[in-house]
Amino acid sequence: MRENIVLFGDSLTEQSFRVNGWGASLANTYSRKADILVRGYGGYNTRWALFLLHHLFPLESTKPPLATAIFFGANDSALSGRTSERQHVPIQEYKHNLQKMVLRLKSCSPTMLIVLITPPPVCEEGRRAYAISLYGNNARELSERTNEVTGQYANTCVEMAKEMGVAYINLWSKMQETEGWQKKFLWDGLHLTPDGNAVVFQEVIKVFNEAGLSADKMPYDFPHHSKIDDKNPGSSFQQNVCDASL
Amino acid sequence: MRENIVLFGDSLTEQSFRVNGWGASLANTYSRKADILVRGYGGYNTRWALFLLHHLFPLESTKPPLATAIFFGANDSALSGRTSERQHVPIQEYKHNLQKMVLRLKSCSPTMLIVLITPPPVCEEGRRAYAISLYGNNARELSERTNEVTGQYANTCVEMAKEMGVAYINLWSKMQETEGWQKKFLWDGLHLTPDGNAVVFQEVIKVFNEAGLSADKMPYDFPHHSKIDDKNPGSSFQQNVCDASL
Repeated sequence: MRENIVLFGDSLTEQSFRVNGWGASLANTYSRKADILVRGYGGYNTRWALFLLHHLFPLESTKPPLATAIFFGANDSALSGRTSERQHVPIQEYKHNLQKMVLRLKSCSPTMLIVLITPPPVCEEGRRAYAISLYGNNARELSERTNEVTGQYANTCVEMAKEMGVAYINLWSKMQETEGWQKKFLWDGLHLTPDGNAVVFQEVIKVFNEAGLSADKMPYDFPHHSKIDDKNPGSSFQQNVCDASL
Repeated sequence: MRENIVLFGDSLTEQSFRVNGWGASLANTYSRKADILVRGYGGYNTRWALFLLHHLFPLESTKPPLATAIFFGANDSALSGRTSERQHVPIQEYKHNLQKMVLRLKSCSPTMLIVLITPPPVCEEGRRAYAISLYGNNARELSERTNEVTGQYANTCVEMAKEMGVAYINLWSKMQETEGWQKKFLWDGLHLTPDGNAVVFQEVIKVFNEAGLSADKMPYDFPHHSKIDDKNPGSSFQQNVCDASL
């Protein structure tokens, strides 16, 4: 009965129900209207995520998601030859993998809202400080990610979204519009602070609203308590559930 | 494939995905293991919630919840003859309504973990201050709820849980063990602060762990990224998904 909204991504999605997390904020906004399902896989790149597609988005589903956010790239853009090399995916493959995801979702449901989110920017200094906090003098000198390369992946993600006609959020650009984004939005140079989560939430809500999926316009699943006839409550629950908010 | 955990209640549940909300914390804890579905209906008492039972918990479901928390009573215990009178439900009816909920859930699935949560305590002074903040001099002198009466409902909830052999959390008692609970746990004398949410979360986790549903012991839905063979990733996804965490 209730619609599903799926969040498919890496650790930035898996951690989206921490304090002020963008996933939790979505769940709060769509309370009584849609379920937010987290499908976040920390450390995953698009190459590995492709193996999950047919499990998470079966073609024979009678209830495909109303909307799906695809939020990968932070791991694909890890540099070859550095400490996170095993997560690296070449940029052209990243693009093809995203295309496969979009095609799969469109096959599941041609009406599904698909939103591609680019990786956020990277603060190399923040990554280095975090590595030192973990490994001290053993921390490698060179960051495993650079903001420049991640930006190339972000551009590719946007380019692909435009080619395929799906919605997108250029988080890499958006965050860098704010002075001090490095510490304001990223706690370790890569993962989101509560403020960083708020940016993702606001941008996702904006896209959802533009696509006509504003929570305000979706009906409550059952009557608001103030509309229940307390002398004859049964009568308040007899109407079509879809009309419950009228 | 993934198990569901349902949170069924009133506004204390509907608001459980706000900052540090107990629902969001559960979703974070069970990330990649179970979906947390919020079925919170602000303002509802058990009498009205009964009308939702067959919609939310259909007997023919092929995938009943793994666990369900039932968290009502804050509205049932509103006093007759005061401003929230329409939400009042006599204590014996409250008990019978909870019994009907438990029986329904047991019919859905005899193995489902059912956790009854009593209403939290009420801070009458906090309710009064909140009413004044809304209505100024027009605020009624008499609180629409008292801690004493809510305590009777809490005791009835516990009594019923014991009679039916289901798990329970006496939130009314638990919160009052902490000095300053009135403001520490309740922001308007009734609804939960972030600290109040943390208490609910901790108590729910305790019951879940005791029942063998500890998130730590549940398998990941897919391999941890560090276990993926980056030379031959397909091989990491061929094994039974249930064994993915091994």
